[in-house]
Amino acid sequence: MSYKNFPMVSKVVFGRGSFNQLSEILAPKRLSMNAPFIYIIDDVFKNNQWLTSRIPLAYDDKILFISTEEEPKTSQVDAIVEDIILTTKELPSGIIGIGGGSVLDLAKAVSIMLTNEGEAKDYQGWDLVKHPAIYHVGIPTISGTGAEVSRTTVLIGPEKKLGINSDFTPFDQVILDSELTKDVPKNQWFYTGMDCYIHCIESLKGTYLNTFSETYGNMSLELCKEIFLDNNLTAEESEEKLMMASWHGGMSIAYSQVGVAHAMSYALAYVLGVKHGIGNCIVFDHLEEFYPEGVKLFKAMKEKHNIMLPQGICADLSDADFDKMTTIALNLVPLWENALGKNWKQIITPKKLKELYQKM
Amino acid sequence: MSYKNFPMVSKVVFGRGSFNQLSEILAPKRLSMNAPFIYIIDDVFKNNQWLTSRIPLAYDDKILFISTEEEPKTSQVDAIVEDIILTTKELPSGIIGIGGGSVLDLAKAVSIMLTNEGEAKDYQGWDLVKHPAIYHVGIPTISGTGAEVSRTTVLIGPEKKLGINSDFTPFDQVILDSELTKDVPKNQWFYTGMDCYIHCIESLKGTYLNTFSETYGNMSLELCKEIFLDNNLTAEESEEKLMMASWHGGMSIAYSQVGVAHAMSYALAYVLGVKHGIGNCIVFDHLEEFYPEGVKLFKAMKEKHNIMLPQGICADLSDADFDKMTTIALNLVPLWENALGKNWKQIITPKKLKELYQKM
Repeated sequence: MSYKNFPMVSKVVFGRGSFNQLSEILAPKRLSMNAPFIYIIDDVFKNNQWLTSRIPLAYDDKILFISTEEEPKTSQVDAIVEDIILTTKELPSGIIGIGGGSVLDLAKAVSIMLTNEGEAKDYQGWDLVKHPAIYHVGIPTISGTGAEVSRTTVLIGPEKKLGINSDFTPFDQVILDSELTKDVPKNQWFYTGMDCYIHCIESLKGTYLNTFSETYGNMSLELCKEIFLDNNLTAEESEEKLMMASWHGGMSIAYSQVGVAHAMSYALAYVLGVKHGIGNCIVFDHLEEFYPEGVKLFKAMKEKHNIMLPQGICADLSDADFDKMTTIALNLVPLWENALGKNWKQIITPKKLKELYQKM
Repeated sequence: MSYKNFPMVSKVVFGRGSFNQLSEILAPKRLSMNAPFIYIIDDVFKNNQWLTSRIPLAYDDKILFISTEEEPKTSQVDAIVEDIILTTKELPSGIIGIGGGSVLDLAKAVSIMLTNEGEAKDYQGWDLVKHPAIYHVGIPTISGTGAEVSRTTVLIGPEKKLGINSDFTPFDQVILDSELTKDVPKNQWFYTGMDCYIHCIESLKGTYLNTFSETYGNMSLELCKEIFLDNNLTAEESEEKLMMASWHGGMSIAYSQVGVAHAMSYALAYVLGVKHGIGNCIVFDHLEEFYPEGVKLFKAMKEKHNIMLPQGICADLSDADFDKMTTIALNLVPLWENALGKNWKQIITPKKLKELYQKM
């Protein structure tokens, strides 16, 4: 038996307003006047002076505003990398991602592809990255994905939705400033928070679970209950706790894996372009069979916050679409094995999976 | 307000038997044939083939067995560093500490002092280290101190017991193999486990607490209760959970601080040479005034495991000794401020502190 050697985020600042420390954190990391810092920022912040006025631009530093209407793609990573290489005099001093899971994953992938040859799609998988990434910083502005702490960056490639999993993927620096999450719209807050909740359930109910992942998962799950069910917190407390729930939920997957909801949601994202947070919710709502208690609590949370999930999103799909979706989902072997054990193929068949999708 | 930028352990393996992976973990870190790995190991393992036969010695690698009868000293660090410099052809490829908090702290301090000039005592304090340490690995063989995850290495110097707190202190690699803790004597298991429990109480009841530290502290505290009070676990489960409790308890102090028990116990160690784990227990047993619920639970745990603490250890002390002890304890300003707030000097006076010591 061999255990994973898990790489952690190198440095982390936590605190309300800690975003103000960005300048002093980056200063010693500037390699030269010609090696800029590149900021990859969710374009919801485009005219947000409150945030952008605190970004310490100097020399050739620049901001790339990124739309997160769609899930991040390998081709998008390649385009950003090409743009950076063509427009900077030297390799950047650092890549700083400011946004949700999509933006953080883009920042991680770009920092890797700046020092590794070829295209991003070549690195989708496990431990394919050869060279250390450029120094990269993650600053979440919404909580739940765990992207701030994970060793992966999940991308849609030409053939699959799969992460670049490597020791070089985790951030060198994370800034956890819950104040940056204060203006997240309620639905998005719920969907992304549920990404964290579902991580916990899939991790804690999985066959891969060990004590390391269990303790992180339990802590994150307790926080999710406090935030989404008990509902006795001030806005600020709730934002701080959700930020930590996301962090611990991400750590919980270090040794375990996600499960049925993520496998099915990945395929929904690939075929229909359904975004990760809401996709997880749509799927998880129908998984009583696999996670009876988890789904019960999820429905209670949904009700408490008056969340109406889209219905019938698979209504117009062709058989070919369903085939594609079930094939993509079933290819995610570790997720099914974690969820259902070694004999998972006897439990979940293409036919059964299609029936599940048809309910959604 | 400025928040700490906390450096984390770079890589961690968790799993029963993961010690077997040491060889493959170290192999890529060997800088040359002349740059050995130096193992600093608790001498309780001196004739323990089960452990030592799995240490992958090659070229000029060597093992230094260290007695942990006494708390680690700055002079001891200097002596080990001098020995390494005189007997190796090049700076070591890595320092590997295998033992409890004392050994882990020695390994951290030695790895720092191999690349920083002067004596270890010069670096007792905060952020005095100039150069990155030699690659260093921590492998705990007893759980509770949190030394495996902290950014300090606590040493007794000629003038004080104080840590070398720096961004270069945390381990580059930690191996958490609970099997290595299976033969810890019961009293030592309890004292060191209580170090963790007391970290949690001091952190959670401190004025420095934030949400980051609170979530880690809560998780660790729950694990301590499960292990030391509920007592429904198998030996293996208990060992695994205590290892994680220690890890999370250590992380909890990242943003908070320890408190009254540690301040008083540091002075006991300095003046009487009382070891850290038992010293904390002796002190904490008398701190109802500061931590009423925490001390109540502590007494219940003590009773459950039939632990008899030494009594009257301060009985023969002179007034000069008491003066020295209270002075040393009261010098630890951040600990008192965390425990009692900004006006701590009005709550704890030298006279009151002496009276507390006299009970012990």
